[in-house]
Amino acid sequence: MALHPDRLFPIESDARLIARRLFDAVERLPIISPHGHTDPSWYAKDEAFPDPASLFVKPDHYIFRMLYSQGIQLEDLGVPRQDGGPVETDGRKIWRLFAKHFYLFRGTPSRLWFQHALETVFGIEERLTEKNADALYDKIAGRLADPSMRPRALYKQFGIEAISTTDAATDDLAAHDAILKSGWDGRVVPAYRPDAVIDASRPDFRSNVESFTALAGTKLDYQGYLEAHRIRRAYFKKRGATSSDHGHPNARTANLSASEASALFERVLKNASVADADLFRAQMLTEMARMSTEDGLVMQIHPGSFRNHNASVFERFGMDKGADIPRSTGYVEELKPLLDAFGNDSRLTLILFTLDETSYSRELAPLAGHYPALRLGPAWWFHDSPEGMRRFRELTTETAGFYNTVGFNDDTRAYLSIPARHDMARRVDCSYLARLVADHRLDEDEAHEIAHDLAYRLAKQAYKL
Amino acid sequence: MALHPDRLFPIESDARLIARRLFDAVERLPIISPHGHTDPSWYAKDEAFPDPASLFVKPDHYIFRMLYSQGIQLEDLGVPRQDGGPVETDGRKIWRLFAKHFYLFRGTPSRLWFQHALETVFGIEERLTEKNADALYDKIAGRLADPSMRPRALYKQFGIEAISTTDAATDDLAAHDAILKSGWDGRVVPAYRPDAVIDASRPDFRSNVESFTALAGTKLDYQGYLEAHRIRRAYFKKRGATSSDHGHPNARTANLSASEASALFERVLKNASVADADLFRAQMLTEMARMSTEDGLVMQIHPGSFRNHNASVFERFGMDKGADIPRSTGYVEELKPLLDAFGNDSRLTLILFTLDETSYSRELAPLAGHYPALRLGPAWWFHDSPEGMRRFRELTTETAGFYNTVGFNDDTRAYLSIPARHDMARRVDCSYLARLVADHRLDEDEAHEIAHDLAYRLAKQAYKL
Amino acid sequence: MALHPDRLFPIESDARLIARRLFDAVERLPIISPHGHTDPSWYAKDEAFPDPASLFVKPDHYIFRMLYSQGIQLEDLGVPRQDGGPVETDGRKIWRLFAKHFYLFRGTPSRLWFQHALETVFGIEERLTEKNADALYDKIAGRLADPSMRPRALYKQFGIEAISTTDAATDDLAAHDAILKSGWDGRVVPAYRPDAVIDASRPDFRSNVESFTALAGTKLDYQGYLEAHRIRRAYFKKRGATSSDHGHPNARTANLSASEASALFERVLKNASVADADLFRAQMLTEMARMSTEDGLVMQIHPGSFRNHNASVFERFGMDKGADIPRSTGYVEELKPLLDAFGNDSRLTLILFTLDETSYSRELAPLAGHYPALRLGPAWWFHDSPEGMRRFRELTTETAGFYNTVGFNDDTRAYLSIPARHDMARRVDCSYLARLVADHRLDEDEAHEIAHDLAYRLAKQAYKL
Repeated sequence: MALHPDRLFPIESDARLIARRLFDAVERLPIISPHGHTDPSWYAKDEAFPDPASLFVKPDHYIFRMLYSQGIQLEDLGVPRQDGGPVETDGRKIWRLFAKHFYLFRGTPSRLWFQHALETVFGIEERLTEKNADALYDKIAGRLADPSMRPRALYKQFGIEAISTTDAATDDLAAHDAILKSGWDGRVVPAYRPDAVIDASRPDFRSNVESFTALAGTKLDYQGYLEAHRIRRAYFKKRGATSSDHGHPNARTANLSASEASALFERVLKNASVADADLFRAQMLTEMARMSTEDGLVMQIHPGSFRNHNASVFERFGMDKGADIPRSTGYVEELKPLLDAFGNDSRLTLILFTLDETSYSRELAPLAGHYPALRLGPAWWFHDSPEGMRRFRELTTETAGFYNTVGFNDDTRAYLSIPARHDMARRVDCSYLARLVADHRLDEDEAHEIAHDLAYRLAKQAYKL
Repeated sequence: MALHPDRLFPIESDARLIARRLFDAVERLPIISPHGHTDPSWYAKDEAFPDPASLFVKPDHYIFRMLYSQGIQLEDLGVPRQDGGPVETDGRKIWRLFAKHFYLFRGTPSRLWFQHALETVFGIEERLTEKNADALYDKIAGRLADPSMRPRALYKQFGIEAISTTDAATDDLAAHDAILKSGWDGRVVPAYRPDAVIDASRPDFRSNVESFTALAGTKLDYQGYLEAHRIRRAYFKKRGATSSDHGHPNARTANLSASEASALFERVLKNASVADADLFRAQMLTEMARMSTEDGLVMQIHPGSFRNHNASVFERFGMDKGADIPRSTGYVEELKPLLDAFGNDSRLTLILFTLDETSYSRELAPLAGHYPALRLGPAWWFHDSPEGMRRFRELTTETAGFYNTVGFNDDTRAYLSIPARHDMARRVDCSYLARLVADHRLDEDEAHEIAHDLAYRLAKQAYKL
Repeated sequence: MALHPDRLFPIESDARLIARRLFDAVERLPIISPHGHTDPSWYAKDEAFPDPASLFVKPDHYIFRMLYSQGIQLEDLGVPRQDGGPVETDGRKIWRLFAKHFYLFRGTPSRLWFQHALETVFGIEERLTEKNADALYDKIAGRLADPSMRPRALYKQFGIEAISTTDAATDDLAAHDAILKSGWDGRVVPAYRPDAVIDASRPDFRSNVESFTALAGTKLDYQGYLEAHRIRRAYFKKRGATSSDHGHPNARTANLSASEASALFERVLKNASVADADLFRAQMLTEMARMSTEDGLVMQIHPGSFRNHNASVFERFGMDKGADIPRSTGYVEELKPLLDAFGNDSRLTLILFTLDETSYSRELAPLAGHYPALRLGPAWWFHDSPEGMRRFRELTTETAGFYNTVGFNDDTRAYLSIPARHDMARRVDCSYLARLVADHRLDEDEAHEIAHDLAYRLAKQAYKL
C-alpha cells in the first residue's frame, strides 16, 4: 500500500478536513529529536549502512520481539549470541524470514514506520511479502551504497535540526568530539545517562563507580562520587548536552541527610541489599535534580520497566532483547521527596515518562498541572503508537493542558524510523486537535498554534535545544 | 468564539442529529446540585460579587493551579498568604495576568466553563486575550453591581431547583438558618461533612472532637462521640440536609466490636499512630453507614486524594491550593466490612466517587451492579470534563447500567460555572446516548428517557431532594 | 426494536461500509466455543428447556445481579436458597418482574444478547415491556416444546463446530461419555478445571484431594497427588479435552524445589495458612504448565476475581450469584517463575485472561508480544461487551498484534446467548478493523484475512480444536 496522504487522520469528514489543514502547516517543520538512541559514531564516521537486514531487523527490538513471540528463533534473525556462538549471517535469509512473517505486524506501529521508511527513503510502495522479498532486498541493498544514504545525508533529508544521543556517564564522547571537529553543521548532542553508576543492584556497580571516580579524578567516597557526577555532567555539557536521563525500575525519590546518604553510599558500594539499592537510586534522583538546578541540564525520568524479564533470553543474548516489561508505577508518594526539595524551583525542568498509562490522568497530569518544575514527556515506548498517543492526549490534556507537555521525542535506535515517528506524532496530534475544533472545544486558529508548538517549539524549548 | 450550539456533540453527522434532539429536551430542565461547595452566606446575604478577578481567578483552584504550574506566583494572583503577607490586590492586574496566559487552558474544561459564564452571564462572545483584557474586565465589573447579578437572582437565572453546600460537623449553619428565615423560595441545604472530627491524623483532631462533643453536649468518650454525631446529623437534617459526605485518603472501612472501637477512640484521642488513624477513619465510615440506616441521610464517599502534596505551597498558602493529587484507590477489600454490614440494607444509599479511573470498570461498576445500597457518583474533579465523563459512561454502563448511577453533580465553589458544568454534563451524556442510538444499541425513545433521568431525575431521587 | 443489520458498526459512513463488507464474509462462519460453562447433560439428554424464566432469568447471573442491585430479592427471581427455603416458582411471575425492570439493562450487553436470542431463536422483534410480558412469555413457552428447540437442534442451528464445557477434576464426565456413545455428530469436549483440588483455602480442600487421589488410585502424598493430575488429565483428554483452566484469585506462580513443594503439600493438606494456600496455588500453576508440555493440553488462567464478595448472599444462595468482584491483578512478577521454566517452550500454549483492563497495555500485551508460549484470551466477563472488546483491541494490538490473541470465546452458561455473543464479537472486531482500514493503517484485503482469523481460525488453532 502506498502511504495515503490522509493516513491516521480522523475518519469523520469534517474533522479530516481540519486535520489536513493543521498537518499541512507542520508536516515539514524541522525535527527536534531531544531523546533517542542513535549511535553517534554514525554521524562521526558517516559510513554506509550494511545490508537491509542489519538496517531493519537485527537492531530493532520491536521487530524481533514480535517474531520471537511467534516461535522464530533469535539466532535465525541474526541477533548476536553472548557466547559468540553461530547465528544467521546471511542478510537475505533473515530478510526472507521477516517478509514471510510480516503479517504479524498488522495493526502495530512497526508496520507503519517500516512502510514509511520503505516509501520515503527507498521509493518502495509495495507491501513486503514472501514473494517480493528478494526484489525488495535487492532494491534496498542497491541503494545503501549511494552517498545520499549515508547518515549525514539522511540527517539533512530527514530535516533534523538537532538530535540527542544517550550516553553512559563514563563515555568519553569521542564520537561527539569527532563530529564537532569535523565541521559538519549537523547538531548531535549527548545526554548524561548515569544508570550504570547509580544502580547498585548491578553486579558491576562497584567497578563502574571505581572507573567513574577514577575518570573524574575524585575520591571513592560519597563526596567524591557526587563531585564526579558534577565533573562528568560538565564534560557532557561542554559537548552540547542539555539533559540527563534516568531509567529506573520505579519513580521513587529520597532526600536523606548528608550523613545518611554518605553511609548509604558506603553500604551499597560494599554489598547492596535490594532495599538499599532502591533507596540509593531514589536518593540519586534528588541529587541529580539538585545538580540540574546548578548546571541547567534538563532531567528526564524513564521509570517502570522490568528489564530483561526473560531469564534464558537474557543469558543467551544479553540486554535489550525485547523482554523489558512495564509494571505498575506510582508517582505521588514516590516523587514527593524530590518535589518537596525542588518541585517549585524555576531552575529545574523535570520531564516525566511512564509505561503505566493509568498514571496519566490519575497522577501525572495532576502533578504536572501543578508543579512548576514538572513537564510530561510524550507517550513512551509501547505507547508511542497511534492509539497510545491519542490516549496520552485524551488522558492528560484536560488536567495538564498542552503546555505542561513537551511535544514529541522518538526514543529510537532505528534511524530510518525517526521521520516516520515524527510524522505519526504530528498526524495524531493534529487529529486530536481537529476533533477538538470539530466539536467546538477549540478555535481553529488556536489549533494551528498548538500543532506548531507540539511538533516543534515545545521540545526545543523544554530541552533547551 | 461564540458558544456553538453543537459544542461537545458527536462529530459524526447522524449521531449529531440524534444528540441535538436528545439535548433539546433536557437543556432547560431545572438544575439539581446535590453536592458542591458554594458559600451559603452568598444566598443568605445576597450581596454583589466583587471584581472579576475575585469571581473568576482567586477562588478557583482549577485556574490558579494551571497558572502556577507555568511559573506564575500565587501571590501575583492574589491568593492570600497564611502569614498575611502582601499579595496582589489589584483585580485588574490579576485579570491581565490571567488573560495573558489564557492560552494555557486550551483543551481544558476550565476554558469551556469560563467561556460559558462569560457568554451566558455577561453576554461576552469574545475570547479573552491580552488585548481585550481591560475591556472585558470593565464590562464584567460594570455588570457585577446589577441586582440581576446577586446570588439569589443568579440562582433563579441558572434554573437551580435545589443546591447543597458542604459543611463541617461543627458548623452552626447560621447562614442556612438565615436563608430559611428570610422566606426566600430558593432551596439551599447543608451536607454533613465530619472529616475534621474523624480524621485523627490532623493536628487539631483532639480539639475538634472536644468542641464537637461540647457543642452536642455529650461526654468525651466513644459513646458520647457517636451520640454527638447523631445529634449533629439531626441538627443538619432539621435544616434540610439529605446527605453526609466523607473525604478520606482511601476507601477503607472496618467494623470493629464496640469494645475495640471504643479502645481505638481512646488511643487516637491521645496520640494517633498512622495505622490507628487509618483504622479509625475506616471504622467511622461504617458507623456513618449505620447512622444513615437510622436517619436516612444519603452517604457519599470521596476518597483517594493526597491532600496538600506541595509542602511549601501548603505552608505558605494553606489547604485547597490545587496541590491535591489523586492516587491509586481500591474498593474491593476496602469496602467489604461496611458492605457486609449494610450493603444489602435497603435503607442505605451509599454514593461512591473515585479519582482513580481504573476502578470504574474493574471495581466500582461490578460493585454497584450488585449491591443494592451502592450507587456511583459522576466523574469527579479532574475527570469532570468531556473526556472524563465520556470515559465514565463507557467504563461503567455496560456493567452497572445507567440506573446505578446518580446523574450529575457539579462539586464546585465557582458559582458561575454551575450552569456551565451541568450544560457540559448534559451534552456529554446526550452524545454518549446518541452514539448508542446511532449504532443501534438503544432505541431513541429509551435514550430520551435516560437523558431526562441523567439530567434531572436520578440526582433528585438518589439524594432525596 | 428489530435487530438492525448495522448494529455495533462504526457510525462513520466510510468505516461502516468497510465493516459491512468484512462482517458479511465472517457472519456465518462456524462457531468455535473453546471455553464456556454450558451443561454437558443438555447435549447428552437433549431434553426440552423448561419455561422462559428458567431459560433467561434464573441461571443468568448477569441478569439477576442487575435486578438485585436495584432492590429486587433473589427469592422473587426464583434463585434457589441454600437452605431449601421457599422461592418463587411461578415462571410467569418471575418473567413479569424481569419485564418490568427490563429498562435497567439499557446500555448493557445483556440487553443485546437477550434481544438477539428473542429475535433469532423465537422470532420476536418487540422490546420486552411490562405490557407485552405475558404475550412474549406465552410465545416463548409455546416454542420450547418444539423439537427444534432441543439442545442438539440448537447446536446445529447456531452453527457450532465445537464447544468445550468446564469440568471439575473429579468429574466422571458421564455426560461426555453419553454424548460420544450416542453417535451424535456434535463436538462437545470437556476442559480440566482442578481448582477444587488446588485451592487449599477451601474448607473442603482436604476431602476434595482425598476423593481425587482415591479416584485416580494414587497415594495421598505429593507425588501421588501430581500423578493423580496426570491420570485425570489423560482421562479428560481421552474424552476430547484439549485444555485445562485455572480460576485463581491472582496470577502468582512459583517454581519450588521438589522437596519444598512436597513439604508445602503436606502443610496445606493439614491446615493451610493464607500464605501457604497462595503459594500452593502458585506452585500448581507451574506444575500444570509442566504437564501441558507433556500432554499438550492448552492452559488457561482466569485470575483476579474476588469470589462471593457478598457474605449474606453467599450464605443464603451460595456461589456464582453475581457477587464476584474483580480486583487489581499483576502479571509481571507473578508469572515470572512459570515463564522462566516454560515461557520459551514451544510445547506450551498458555492463554491469559484478565478482569483488570489496566494490564492490557501495561503487562499483558508486552508479555504476549515477547514470550512464545503466551497468548491473550479475549476480553473477559464484565468486559465481554462492545466497549470492552473495543478497548481490548485498542490496548493490545499495537504491542501484541492480532496473532498473539486467540479470537473469541463466549464463556457463558446461557446457551441462547452463544450465537449472540459471537455475533457481537465479530461485529466489534470487524468495526475495529474497518477503522484501521478507513484511516489507512491497514489494507482491506488484510482486514479480511484478520477478520476470518479472529472469528474462526485463531480459536481453533490456539485451542487445538
